[in-house]
Amino acid sequence: MLGGMGPAATLDFLAKLQGIANAVCDQDHCPVMTISASGTPDRTAAILGQGESPLPAMQEAMAALERAGVSHVAIPCNTAHYWFDALQAGTELRLIHIVEAAMEQLVLRFGGVATVGLIATTGAVHSGVYHQRLEADGRRVLTPPDQVAVMGVIEKIKAGRMTEALPVLVQQVRALREAGVEAIILGCTELPLCLPHLPVELQPLIVDATEALARASLQTLAEANAAFSSGR
Amino acid sequence: MLGGMGPAATLDFLAKLQGIANAVCDQDHCPVMTISASGTPDRTAAILGQGESPLPAMQEAMAALERAGVSHVAIPCNTAHYWFDALQAGTELRLIHIVEAAMEQLVLRFGGVATVGLIATTGAVHSGVYHQRLEADGRRVLTPPDQVAVMGVIEKIKAGRMTEALPVLVQQVRALREAGVEAIILGCTELPLCLPHLPVELQPLIVDATEALARASLQTLAEANAAFSSGR
Repeated sequence: MLGGMGPAATLDFLAKLQGIANAVCDQDHCPVMTISASGTPDRTAAILGQGESPLPAMQEAMAALERAGVSHVAIPCNTAHYWFDALQAGTELRLIHIVEAAMEQLVLRFGGVATVGLIATTGAVHSGVYHQRLEADGRRVLTPPDQVAVMGVIEKIKAGRMTEALPVLVQQVRALREAGVEAIILGCTELPLCLPHLPVELQPLIVDATEALARASLQTLAEANAAFSSGR
Repeated sequence: MLGGMGPAATLDFLAKLQGIANAVCDQDHCPVMTISASGTPDRTAAILGQGESPLPAMQEAMAALERAGVSHVAIPCNTAHYWFDALQAGTELRLIHIVEAAMEQLVLRFGGVATVGLIATTGAVHSGVYHQRLEADGRRVLTPPDQVAVMGVIEKIKAGRMTEALPVLVQQVRALREAGVEAIILGCTELPLCLPHLPVELQPLIVDATEALARASLQTLAEANAAFSSGR
């Protein structure tokens, strides 16, 4: 896993991977190599042209994973997926795409739902990583009324100030629901850290991209192992 | 970090590392590479002569960390420290010792306390990793009355059955306190996962070896960086 963006989201991803594995002893879990490349420059700043590119740091981390001997890489940072194709082009490793994983969960749980809310960093919104895929499926994408407040929520979570972040996030989720969205993608890996504390009536609306990535990762590994076993 | 023994303890260690770092943004955290070598054979079984040695799997994981470019390695599994010297002898990386880290916290918080409780795997108890150091300091070590129950607690935590594990652990902690111990080392990295749920009056007794390892790791890194900066 290319993690550290941010470190708390990395733990959330690992916990979801462990939870889905449903293991009863250490040896049941899938082996994971995690690089917490927390020094990677801010993704949103780079997309908005206000900061240096995180690509070299991510490529360096990817090379370290390759030397260590991994086969597949998940990146629990939605915004970093702006550089997904560049990263994939530079490595033999197979990358697992968080946006495609979230799309899969959206279809599974909400089918052909027409209007989808997206709560993500300004970088992810601006880059269109989610918009392109959702609109290609003929869906309408709504973002929250106050994107600056959303960035504030994400920064507060990164600083460990969850109790300050939560009410603002709830406000933005409610506003999206009132605007008529039928499903909401939490498309920044910091946001699902609030999920256990969201009011119960809002939870069924949510697609958790981190959990989707964990599911897609275990499924991809299972397929790779099956292909390996059957000699394909 | 050489982790995965077990995977939940690995997350606990990473969370403590992040908590102590007191960061306000991603870039404030220290970069961490984690290998979750969860397939490593059971340490207690090996120490008791009932299972294969985990040393080759740990050496392989260590080699992967070395290829990936790390400088220091922490191993959040107390029982694995039976093989600490063998691991250290086979690598240029600097290993950080969990038992020494726990000793440091014991001295800091309890000074010259004469009788210390140790709750750990049967492998860790049998191997003497804690006993040797505590007795060399002139301290008396007490283990809980029911070591089989302790192993049951650890296995339940590994299987995600925390609510079943907790009352048994509380019983063993109470028994140690009644036997006159003044401090108790939770010397298996699964056990501190129960710590937030321990009765408040028992918490001041506890030395959490996982937290001690996180503190020692950040301190060792800070010293290494300072030495590097001053050209030593």
